[in-house]
Amino acid sequence: MENGSLKKWRFQGNKNLTTSSGFTVRGVLNSLIENLNVNDPRPTIPLGNGDPSAFPCFRTAIEAEDAIVDAVRSAKYNHYSPTAGLLPARRAVAEYLNRDLPYKLSPDDVFLTLGCIQAIEAILTSLKHPGANILLPRPGFPYYESLAAHIHLEVKHFDLLPEKGWEVDLDAVEALVDENTVAMVIINPGNPCGSVYTRQHLQKIAETARNLGILVIADEVYEHLAFGSTPYVPMGVFGSIVPVVTLGSISKRWIVPGWRLGWVVTSDPNGILLKTVIIDSIKGFLNISSDPITFIQGALPQILDKTKEDFYSKIIDILRKDADIGYDKIAEIPCITCSKKPEGGMFMMVKLNVSLLEGINDDMDFVLQLAKEESVIVLPGIAVGMKNWLRVTFAIDPSMLEEGLERMKSFCQRHAKKQ
Amino acid sequence: MENGSLKKWRFQGNKNLTTSSGFTVRGVLNSLIENLNVNDPRPTIPLGNGDPSAFPCFRTAIEAEDAIVDAVRSAKYNHYSPTAGLLPARRAVAEYLNRDLPYKLSPDDVFLTLGCIQAIEAILTSLKHPGANILLPRPGFPYYESLAAHIHLEVKHFDLLPEKGWEVDLDAVEALVDENTVAMVIINPGNPCGSVYTRQHLQKIAETARNLGILVIADEVYEHLAFGSTPYVPMGVFGSIVPVVTLGSISKRWIVPGWRLGWVVTSDPNGILLKTVIIDSIKGFLNISSDPITFIQGALPQILDKTKEDFYSKIIDILRKDADIGYDKIAEIPCITCSKKPEGGMFMMVKLNVSLLEGINDDMDFVLQLAKEESVIVLPGIAVGMKNWLRVTFAIDPSMLEEGLERMKSFCQRHAKKQ
Ligand SMILES: Cc1ncc(COP(=O)(O)O)c(C=O)c1O
Ligand SMILES: Cc1ncc(COP(=O)(O)O)c(C=O)c1O
Repeated sequence: MENGSLKKWRFQGNKNLTTSSGFTVRGVLNSLIENLNVNDPRPTIPLGNGDPSAFPCFRTAIEAEDAIVDAVRSAKYNHYSPTAGLLPARRAVAEYLNRDLPYKLSPDDVFLTLGCIQAIEAILTSLKHPGANILLPRPGFPYYESLAAHIHLEVKHFDLLPEKGWEVDLDAVEALVDENTVAMVIINPGNPCGSVYTRQHLQKIAETARNLGILVIADEVYEHLAFGSTPYVPMGVFGSIVPVVTLGSISKRWIVPGWRLGWVVTSDPNGILLKTVIIDSIKGFLNISSDPITFIQGALPQILDKTKEDFYSKIIDILRKDADIGYDKIAEIPCITCSKKPEGGMFMMVKLNVSLLEGINDDMDFVLQLAKEESVIVLPGIAVGMKNWLRVTFAIDPSMLEEGLERMKSFCQRHAKKQ
Repeated sequence: MENGSLKKWRFQGNKNLTTSSGFTVRGVLNSLIENLNVNDPRPTIPLGNGDPSAFPCFRTAIEAEDAIVDAVRSAKYNHYSPTAGLLPARRAVAEYLNRDLPYKLSPDDVFLTLGCIQAIEAILTSLKHPGANILLPRPGFPYYESLAAHIHLEVKHFDLLPEKGWEVDLDAVEALVDENTVAMVIINPGNPCGSVYTRQHLQKIAETARNLGILVIADEVYEHLAFGSTPYVPMGVFGSIVPVVTLGSISKRWIVPGWRLGWVVTSDPNGILLKTVIIDSIKGFLNISSDPITFIQGALPQILDKTKEDFYSKIIDILRKDADIGYDKIAEIPCITCSKKPEGGMFMMVKLNVSLLEGINDDMDFVLQLAKEESVIVLPGIAVGMKNWLRVTFAIDPSMLEEGLERMKSFCQRHAKKQ
């Protein structure tokens, strides 16, 4: 007994996991939430992450809810899922994406995942080999960096150019590629920039990647959430120029991120990926991973087919209104500038001029004090790779957005340097 | 262009993922399914994996279905989940487990996961550090081996002793431990052995682990599925002897493996794990992983509290009947022996005597020919670490089980060596 209580236990923890998580969006937002003033009687305004599902105006389509209820009540989908997903669900995703493609995807090109998060994990893990590196956009979606660190996949960053509507700096991509570069990631519609790429720009990306011999990973989790003058074009349209791996989910268009249903799709009409072991690697990864909920897969054909145009256009209209409010309100705040009104997605990147503020040294300072004084949560740019910028979600209830930005304005006025 | 079509692409695949998946249960079962004779008019009888959800007699509790439907219709659970899960759901799991414990778990001890699979991934990844090794049972659940290979965690095996009702060979455990051993895994009720450990044996395991300074990981995914003379006792009962990490899910007791709701629970009343970074590692892991579906978490308190005793006892009665059928039928087959009637879980391990058979060299041969000739799927022992044994699921519709074992009997008669 004595011996037992004195003995040193042999187990410890995995420090890699504890250090990396502080830099995730979740980690930063959690620390902001801890910084809120519990005595502020006003509601907290969440401009930090892209999840408007709690607002009644963003409630998902009734057809989607019905589809889930039908699937559960049928009791036909309580079983384990096959590795790549149920065939009718894979077929439904292929047909859904085929509406916008010049060639036809088959169900075999579709692998269902637990949201786009697991789609990212699947493709990055499948591309990893010793020494490999991948090109990521800056600013970007920091889950890519966290996951790459976790699986020891090296990362290099190319810039998105604010003065060019956040287009990819393709010269930088060419300069960064080396013989170990396997792929580049684009996010369109953009997080965090609210950009929607033109068909011409996407084609240039495809041609650049083809010339460099690298794969394009197109994160289209915000697919179809385009409300400006540039129409949404999926990268897969250029799959005959370069193999494209498309990542998507129902999280954003249907406003159901808690449902965790996504996909990895190989948009590769020339079958180039079939000559590699990437597709087998994806299957191997999914074989040792938890699967998307079977009854949600069972509901998927109905969700993708039966959701009415009304629902889509209602959401687009609210997002457009939100983007207008966001852009106009930010224009009233001297220390913050937005170079271009967002045309898609749920976020805008805005530049903070700390030299106009008293006692605020950087973006992290700004968001911590803003949370404390105004109960408004905004993500510091540093969390997405750009110091002294802010990532602001506009996808919330429009009147709350107005109130949140109004509070941000008075915060900035209060902290403005006296001339 | 010419240049483009000739160029060598820089990407390849991750061979680690393609080689390991062939040895998963899924991989082996897929190859058996490919070996089925499509012209056999008889239904295929699935004695390969533990998922009886497709059989009407194993339909889940109506209270569980209602809970899901209520949660979906409320539209309150479409949002992203917090990292460790919704607080009411974590509290519900703590209270559910507290019914059988001599101390009280708090919600902070509970981390919700995507089924027990992700619970295994969370704890193994959290314990991994360079050089660490873990002790696994043989026979066991091969996902542990696949995952350990994937994350480069070294594995050592201790035997379960068929002549002692598949108890852990504790002498072997003592002999295997070295200064890098962090934990041992037990599965109770057992997969693949159908064993239920006595309170005395569990206490001995706890004492052995305490003396060796290693953690006990108790995989209790089959919790409460005990129908023999040995009552089910959770390992957490001995959490004050040694820190226990309990893994569980609703997959088995509620027969809903497609719902993917599980948990990692630290059963550690002395707070020893708090002094390590294991808990932070679990949080870090969950921070970079997909979460269990929010509305299923929302439904969980109702599922755990409202399911009627009737449902539990109906399932136990069917499983008991199945175990009787399995044991009695196997006794009629000369080349197959079962040392002990299963008392829990969904599987039995039976020994194959290939020397009594003509033209069948080993267990793999046996299951491949059985699939082809009789449309019966059984897992070869080699897939769970024991050559020339078979893992037979008895958890299916009882009349189908009889038919499946009847077919196995005539298969064995047909292939018996002539004396
Ligand atoms: C660019 C990007 N990719 C992927 C994801 C993850 O999506 P999901 O909720 O489908 O996992 C997000 C979520 O915000 C995102 O912004
Ligand atoms: C011993 C054991 N652990 C874990 C699991 C995985 O359980 P879940 O379906 O909850 O992921 C299984 C499934 O068969 C199992 O047999």
